[in-house]
Amino acid sequence: MGGDVGGDTVRFARWDGAGSPFRVVSTALPARLDAGEVLVEVELATICGSDLHTVAGHRPAPTPTVLGHEQVGRVVAAAPGAPVRPGDRVVWSVTVSCGACPRCTRGLEHKCVRLRKFGHEPVDGGWTLSGGFATHAVLPAGTTIVPVPEDLPDVVAAPASCATATVAAMLDAAPPLPGRRVLVTGAGLLGVTAAAMCATAGAEVTVSDPDPARRRLATRFGADRVAAPGEPLTGFDVALELSGSATAVEGCLAALDVGGHAVLAGSVSPGPPVTIAPERFVRNLLTVTGVHNYRPGHLRRAVAFLTGHAGRFPFAELVGERFGLAELDRAFAAAGRSPALRQAVEPRR
Amino acid sequence: MGGDVGGDTVRFARWDGAGSPFRVVSTALPARLDAGEVLVEVELATICGSDLHTVAGHRPAPTPTVLGHEQVGRVVAAAPGAPVRPGDRVVWSVTVSCGACPRCTRGLEHKCVRLRKFGHEPVDGGWTLSGGFATHAVLPAGTTIVPVPEDLPDVVAAPASCATATVAAMLDAAPPLPGRRVLVTGAGLLGVTAAAMCATAGAEVTVSDPDPARRRLATRFGADRVAAPGEPLTGFDVALELSGSATAVEGCLAALDVGGHAVLAGSVSPGPPVTIAPERFVRNLLTVTGVHNYRPGHLRRAVAFLTGHAGRFPFAELVGERFGLAELDRAFAAAGRSPALRQAVEPRR
Repeated sequence: MGGDVGGDTVRFARWDGAGSPFRVVSTALPARLDAGEVLVEVELATICGSDLHTVAGHRPAPTPTVLGHEQVGRVVAAAPGAPVRPGDRVVWSVTVSCGACPRCTRGLEHKCVRLRKFGHEPVDGGWTLSGGFATHAVLPAGTTIVPVPEDLPDVVAAPASCATATVAAMLDAAPPLPGRRVLVTGAGLLGVTAAAMCATAGAEVTVSDPDPARRRLATRFGADRVAAPGEPLTGFDVALELSGSATAVEGCLAALDVGGHAVLAGSVSPGPPVTIAPERFVRNLLTVTGVHNYRPGHLRRAVAFLTGHAGRFPFAELVGERFGLAELDRAFAAAGRSPALRQAVEPRR
Repeated sequence: MGGDVGGDTVRFARWDGAGSPFRVVSTALPARLDAGEVLVEVELATICGSDLHTVAGHRPAPTPTVLGHEQVGRVVAAAPGAPVRPGDRVVWSVTVSCGACPRCTRGLEHKCVRLRKFGHEPVDGGWTLSGGFATHAVLPAGTTIVPVPEDLPDVVAAPASCATATVAAMLDAAPPLPGRRVLVTGAGLLGVTAAAMCATAGAEVTVSDPDPARRRLATRFGADRVAAPGEPLTGFDVALELSGSATAVEGCLAALDVGGHAVLAGSVSPGPPVTIAPERFVRNLLTVTGVHNYRPGHLRRAVAFLTGHAGRFPFAELVGERFGLAELDRAFAAAGRSPALRQAVEPRR
């Protein structure tokens, strides 16, 4: 099938801003896909913590918008030049890069000067089907699209494009893991994914989280040891910060051994500043790196990890209930109450 | 020639602590070199800024000691297993590593748990000829020794083992330089060396220093642009901090563009803390790395740079007067007054 996709009616959940309920809206498919574009049917989406923050009004977003950026789907149509074919089961990147700007041409395509982000765009900006809480989505040229095996459970595959790929980007920024002592702060979906990926790579993993239930969960994802914040932690080669807490950032830096490397990804909202002692950085050869978004290879690495190793860990248990598209308000409310790390949305339900 | 070195009398400048003058002391050469040891005759040593700090009492040191750790010399004798031969003109590393501890075996030999440092040891600790302000020095097994060409001027070769190799370590920690915008803060010997190495590698170099004379000097070492502290600086891919000033560290971090990397090496004394905003680190993909000491390859890279490229820059002009071993007090006093970045010591003079 080429660029013609007909004019079928599809549905998306429109979000109009904090305090407004989700509204399911019907729209016509675009008559034709542009070069390199792909139309997918969304099989299952999960609700990322950042969507919870957005809906709670703690994070700016263009409105009206289609939220959702962790999902798995199936290709319905692919325009010439697209990297996949109809029928392929796929996940795709949050970021859409131009491929031509100075950042794209030097390996910073995830910070493209014309960056667009799936699940973060206004519906009236020319890209309506731009989020995962919809029956269908259009993936523009510049999206990274990665096939996933048919037997990878939907709830395991969906987070690849956000949680798993972000962790893959963090590990790419860190030194090689075999035999290293790794500290993970924050045992949400990213934290337990980080524990599982590091354990699989042969690292010795400690996970710190204030919540005893999450600490117990971490031990099922490969953590050799867990700790509550405040427990003295030292001697780590790598620290992966996923909580976003300034105290945790400071704890990660303090926990590093000589030559240690802290990778920060949790601090995506304004927060208190953190102080560092330059002399300790210099004499102890410390490194701290920030990671946000990810590059195409990281999504491929995420899928390869989930395909090869997810079965060793209870990833499927991390997702609580499944909701229909018309039940999004209930799904978001459940996410705030549920011990599960994710709630799922099945748009065709 | 093997391990036998006879019992000739040699001289070193003993330093007994802040406020004491240097005293030239005669001693016998060790009767025999241990396996892998090398005896060198010091041709010329330069006085590093850290020696000035030590003598001024601003930096702890074991006493009595033989200071001096930037020098060029000639191999007099080499025990079996040594990597050089009598007659070789050489520079050597500040650090002496055991090669067997957990740090040495994972690439942190410059932070060996049994680290010894040339020019930083007590004379009564079993390694008397352990500094550059002496007619001769013994280089233990575990020292990196690199041959230098006969035609490389002594004053250009001597700083290789401190200034040039440290800059090489910083560049190894930074991303590739061709086409990158590099900020260097601090235009002492390390700063102008960094400017020259970055310019030679194809970077666009800006040097910041409060001293107008040093800024002018920087332009002769490849700086495309110079700036006084306080001038707004932004858009850099790499920032190399060599001044040790907390304000300069903050300026380096503030000057980084998205994906930028700051390498700190100047902060070798306790100083005010520096504040970072974790969210900016994360969203802008920033990295900061501390560098202290260097690995063997960095000394080789330093010598290769000086051999291949030093002639394009006025390195020889950076050294002011030449002093004899008995004139060290005068040499240190001159270092405090002279506009030259280094004073030289010719121990055999």
